[in-house]
Amino acid sequence: MKRELLPPEELAAALATLPGWQVEDGTLAKTYRFPAYLAGAAFIARLAEKAEAMDHHPDLHLGWRKVAMRVSTHSAGGITALDIALAHEAELLHGRAGTPD
Amino acid sequence: MKRELLPPEELAAALATLPGWQVEDGTLAKTYRFPAYLAGAAFIARLAEKAEAMDHHPDLHLGWRKVAMRVSTHSAGGITALDIALAHEAELLHGRAGTPD
Repeated sequence: MKRELLPPEELAAALATLPGWQVEDGTLAKTYRFPAYLAGAAFIARLAEKAEAMDHHPDLHLGWRKVAMRVSTHSAGGITALDIALAHEAELLHGRAGTPD
Repeated sequence: MKRELLPPEELAAALATLPGWQVEDGTLAKTYRFPAYLAGAAFIARLAEKAEAMDHHPDLHLGWRKVAMRVSTHSAGGITALDIALAHEAELLHGRAGTPD
């Protein structure tokens, strides 16, 4: 069920709970800022482990003090509840960035 | 000196020592393949630490079992010896991927 395409009204409701997230070409996307290059790399390392555990793998682009994340569900051809769940995990991890493990 | 633009003949000679690397829009670029998503994430983590130590920070794009790397020297407006050095570090790290630390 989590890998079924979200109806537009459910997607809109989910986006309202995810500040800074946008739909770009059928993909859920956000760019996170970090105080340092390595902080962005650490975010990718943690998020990749969470993604692996969820068996759902985002595109993560490390740039200078930023990470661009994009996720969609290929088998559904768009955004599903699984993408929303992964976006929430990213929000949690980013909120913890810079604090000790 | 390492942050000066490489003359074309020196760039060509350097590229000959870097299999799979190409110049794209004035940037040194290669896409590495990995047996698993997390192997790509681990490659990014290690390369980011090396990049930080060199004070030279590539763009690294983690996708499904691949990492696209792009590096250039903004202050020089193109490719320098520092970019070549970082590409060689990436080759070394990728060669070690999958082996124990």
